[in-house]
Amino acid sequence: MNNGKLRIIPLGGLDQIGMNITAFEYGNDIIVVDCGLAFPEDDMLGIDLVIPDTTYLEDNADRVRGLVITHGHEDHIGAIPYVMQKLPVPIYGTRLTMALIENKLSEHEMLDSVTRNVVSFGETIKFASLEIEFIRTNHSISDACALAITSPVGTVVHTGDFKVDYTPVYGDPIDLARFAELGNRGVLALLCDSTNAERAGYTNSEKTVGKALDAIFADHATSRIIVATFSSNVDRVQQIINAASRYNRKVVLEGRSMINIINTAIDIGYVSLPEGILIDISQIKDYPDEKTVIITTGSQGESMAALSRIAANMHKTVSIKPGDLVVFSSNPIPGNEKAVFKVINELSLKGAEVIFQDAHVSGHACQEEIKLIYTLTRPKFAIPVHGEHRHLMAQRSIAKEVGIPKENILILSNGQVLELDQESAAVVGDVPNGAVFVDGLGVGDVGNVVLRDRQRLADDGIVIVCMSLIPGTNRVVAGPLVMSRGFVYIKESDEFMEEARDVVLEALFKIEDRGITSRNKIRDMIKDALSGFIWKRIKRSPMILPIIMESTEE
Amino acid sequence: MNNGKLRIIPLGGLDQIGMNITAFEYGNDIIVVDCGLAFPEDDMLGIDLVIPDTTYLEDNADRVRGLVITHGHEDHIGAIPYVMQKLPVPIYGTRLTMALIENKLSEHEMLDSVTRNVVSFGETIKFASLEIEFIRTNHSISDACALAITSPVGTVVHTGDFKVDYTPVYGDPIDLARFAELGNRGVLALLCDSTNAERAGYTNSEKTVGKALDAIFADHATSRIIVATFSSNVDRVQQIINAASRYNRKVVLEGRSMINIINTAIDIGYVSLPEGILIDISQIKDYPDEKTVIITTGSQGESMAALSRIAANMHKTVSIKPGDLVVFSSNPIPGNEKAVFKVINELSLKGAEVIFQDAHVSGHACQEEIKLIYTLTRPKFAIPVHGEHRHLMAQRSIAKEVGIPKENILILSNGQVLELDQESAAVVGDVPNGAVFVDGLGVGDVGNVVLRDRQRLADDGIVIVCMSLIPGTNRVVAGPLVMSRGFVYIKESDEFMEEARDVVLEALFKIEDRGITSRNKIRDMIKDALSGFIWKRIKRSPMILPIIMESTEE
Repeated sequence: MNNGKLRIIPLGGLDQIGMNITAFEYGNDIIVVDCGLAFPEDDMLGIDLVIPDTTYLEDNADRVRGLVITHGHEDHIGAIPYVMQKLPVPIYGTRLTMALIENKLSEHEMLDSVTRNVVSFGETIKFASLEIEFIRTNHSISDACALAITSPVGTVVHTGDFKVDYTPVYGDPIDLARFAELGNRGVLALLCDSTNAERAGYTNSEKTVGKALDAIFADHATSRIIVATFSSNVDRVQQIINAASRYNRKVVLEGRSMINIINTAIDIGYVSLPEGILIDISQIKDYPDEKTVIITTGSQGESMAALSRIAANMHKTVSIKPGDLVVFSSNPIPGNEKAVFKVINELSLKGAEVIFQDAHVSGHACQEEIKLIYTLTRPKFAIPVHGEHRHLMAQRSIAKEVGIPKENILILSNGQVLELDQESAAVVGDVPNGAVFVDGLGVGDVGNVVLRDRQRLADDGIVIVCMSLIPGTNRVVAGPLVMSRGFVYIKESDEFMEEARDVVLEALFKIEDRGITSRNKIRDMIKDALSGFIWKRIKRSPMILPIIMESTEE
Repeated sequence: MNNGKLRIIPLGGLDQIGMNITAFEYGNDIIVVDCGLAFPEDDMLGIDLVIPDTTYLEDNADRVRGLVITHGHEDHIGAIPYVMQKLPVPIYGTRLTMALIENKLSEHEMLDSVTRNVVSFGETIKFASLEIEFIRTNHSISDACALAITSPVGTVVHTGDFKVDYTPVYGDPIDLARFAELGNRGVLALLCDSTNAERAGYTNSEKTVGKALDAIFADHATSRIIVATFSSNVDRVQQIINAASRYNRKVVLEGRSMINIINTAIDIGYVSLPEGILIDISQIKDYPDEKTVIITTGSQGESMAALSRIAANMHKTVSIKPGDLVVFSSNPIPGNEKAVFKVINELSLKGAEVIFQDAHVSGHACQEEIKLIYTLTRPKFAIPVHGEHRHLMAQRSIAKEVGIPKENILILSNGQVLELDQESAAVVGDVPNGAVFVDGLGVGDVGNVVLRDRQRLADDGIVIVCMSLIPGTNRVVAGPLVMSRGFVYIKESDEFMEEARDVVLEALFKIEDRGITSRNKIRDMIKDALSGFIWKRIKRSPMILPIIMESTEE
């Protein structure tokens, strides 16, 4: 195994949103960076979560030394409880990151079974032949870090998700000096965040949002204010609390993950609270509207989140009244636009004023920030990560612009094994990778066949033909019964189903005529007859399920 | 009926995208403006199209004098073939609009059964007590018009969808002078497009896209160029053809609606073609890449459109190769972002360069243009139309800004009956309204029950329990058989289904014990037992369908 090369194997996170997980391997040692989930695509019907296929790591479990986490977002930590069940290795992360992982493990009743190590910025963890240094960055969650992964053949820098914020709300700016020192020492490869690589310029500081919020609060002195944002953006919540404090408003946290995450952040001192500012939602009725702010989940229009329930009049304490102000301190993630607009329309219909998109900044580096990191680290190889293919390609252009030779920019796919040393880098093979679907308590028990069936059922419903035959014959002793679900519903449907039954009976006569007794053959003939009839009559293709039972009595 | 008031009844188009249809009524006369479709929402599983409920018009068919169309977009003409079957009134529209309606009627084999009247700009059609004047506007399709609807109690101006374009590609700028004249004469109410009412400033002229296209063509002299845009944006296609001509490229039209609509526009002289520029897709192989442009459908990522098939390597003639340039001359309509990005990623993976959003302008008026129309027409009442609630509310703010008294700005809902005269305006009632689903050849046969079932099937699939009993008893002579579709698929599933069957058998023992023979009761008990078991085991709620057949043999 030890051919003197470092192997980098992205198991997820490329060409997709979420599910970040990358293996770094030298000789007998494997370190895994991040272990995130993805949210289901539109065609993954009924799926709750998507986690990475970690077969490769499980097959090499004895060589996996640890799991290192760059920050506490779901697309970097969400799969931990599932993967830890099969791969119980120690986890390393910064303070807030680890606190959020602990929340998650505790929900899965796994807190006792996982070794956890809180790491400080600047600290280096040695895993046999691999050393990992944690470098401070900025992002839309506190305590995000980049990693310098040093192997005998050189140092690889992995930025994690980052932006450059010279005036962060909490903590220090990204440790640019350390990136520069690593650059001076020599960086073999840079794995850099591509999310905003299509965007020119710089991402604004988180602090600019504070100013926008201040202006909004000043303009709406008499309204109750509801602010929806990402529960994991602790600094954002801090700024909303600060604005509330300046305008003498009490603050209610609402939504399960908002309460969970912010209380966790409060516990470890990452949110500072003016005394008595936080009140419980049950107390809100005791304060006049102009003295309250509700900070809530639901900024993405998620149908079960607090804001969506408030907008739909389905919240147990809060309902919208004319004069309320709702601020979306967020942008819709692509794919969520319609859901967000639906909530905005519902709020607006109930008389709320809605402010949208004026109070948000991205957590990812734009083109000039990416150039800055390249310029400081001066890597031999560039490996764009974190993004869809269009984002990776945009970073490729940036890398070329700052002077990385074209042939040293490596656009990888999930599962590819990249081997590199100071001379060269090459993809030498691939390992199993892909998405494992989580549905309810089931992990991996819903696959493509089931999803195809669900799509078919969703599009046109199901028609079931049920009958019971005397074993070995084609003599029908019960049925045929034709039923449907999700197909059509009309006053004439009884007649239509009657006709459908006639079509089945006709097929059965043919079956009798020809002396066919094979159950498979009978099923096929009924299916063909019925699907032909339905398509001809109404141009639809429901799933057709013929069920034949064997009668135990003759 | 004639109380000396004008009645305005929006039957669709408010608080939604699409499905524009409004009735104007005075005494015994009803005029219908537009007759559009909507595309299904995400939760309308399997639905192809949505058309308005026109019960009110059908019930008053003897009073409906005509259908007047403002322009040829699907959300204004798409429901015509369906509505005309029940309400065969004469249609009025400008030249291109009518040509597109004729295309549509011809596809439905209805061309002979509908009276059609082509109207010129400036022309006024008299329908008994109502007169309708067609006023030229600009929009993202040629021949768009506003309407001045004059009744004995005053004139109402309906802008249709519009923008102000001083330098349109084809035809003249919007007839602002006529809006001013109407304003001088007195406008009772203005129904104004709200789509872009949230956006400050002005919408750019369509001509600016021509310049952007020129620059793109100049920069990519050696690439094959594929441009995706809306097939109905005839002027856009004209500008792409112009750019192609300047750079000596041949043009291929691809995609069913692109070919249909542009050929229609060519036939009536709305597209001017340099001689020999248009070639068939089969000829493209005879030209070098740098000498061709493909203008295609699929700018919204529609899965069956030409560009999506090209991107997925499923197109019969064109496949992407490195060096190709694909230009999206379009913006994604909210809700289509993910589909568009999917296509961009696929194109990018195959080596194409993709230009996105640099070559598009909106077809709708922004805030300053809306203010211009208000300022020219000086209406007594403002009735924001065409948009979701948030858009209507945004126009409300604009109307207030330009001096319309708050109480004269009327935010209507679909189906509301607004009565107005020179003194007052009030909602006096409502009429049936809503969405009728079109699925395959079925119109209205898929309702909420079917959609709920489809959602359930999509989320968790179906489990079917089938058995045959001796009539009047609870004696099982065939089955129980437990089957599933879209539920789970695992190696252990046989065992799981075996357990499920045991649960059913247990329920049957209980049924026998208690001497229960009611089929409904038996079905309920089986359903409860099985759904309890499945929820407890894997936290899922498939649809459970117990089927009991009566055995004909004892």
